[in-house]
Amino acid sequence: MTTTTFTVTGMTCSHCVAAVTEEVTKLDGVQGVDVDLASGRVAVHATGPVDPAAFAAAVDEAGYEVAG
Amino acid sequence: MTTTTFTVTGMTCSHCVAAVTEEVTKLDGVQGVDVDLASGRVAVHATGPVDPAAFAAAVDEAGYEVAG
Repeated sequence: MTTTTFTVTGMTCSHCVAAVTEEVTKLDGVQGVDVDLASGRVAVHATGPVDPAAFAAAVDEAGYEVAG
Repeated sequence: MTTTTFTVTGMTCSHCVAAVTEEVTKLDGVQGVDVDLASGRVAVHATGPVDPAAFAAAVDEAGYEVAG
């Protein structure tokens, strides 16, 4: 299993964390998602490296943005 | 119709607004709920005055608190 980490901006509460987790979990190969609300860091545990574009699309779908 | 206004603390995003709106809408006689996220003001439109204790219980159920 590979862990890929991104930073997401705009999450303010546990509902935001749940929305991001739900969308990112749908990506191919994803087996788990850990979100740290305070820092915005999202660790994606998957069968292989996560495509940044696919991750960004999932985050956008949830209503947030990837930093940088 | 009567409008009763309260202030709720802890709401940080539109998901919070939705959670509070959902719970308060379930109260007896409530016909509409308007939440202003920036100020925390919640206007409850109902068939009569809203019981503050019932409102507080609904807000608590959503995971927030009434100010004051």
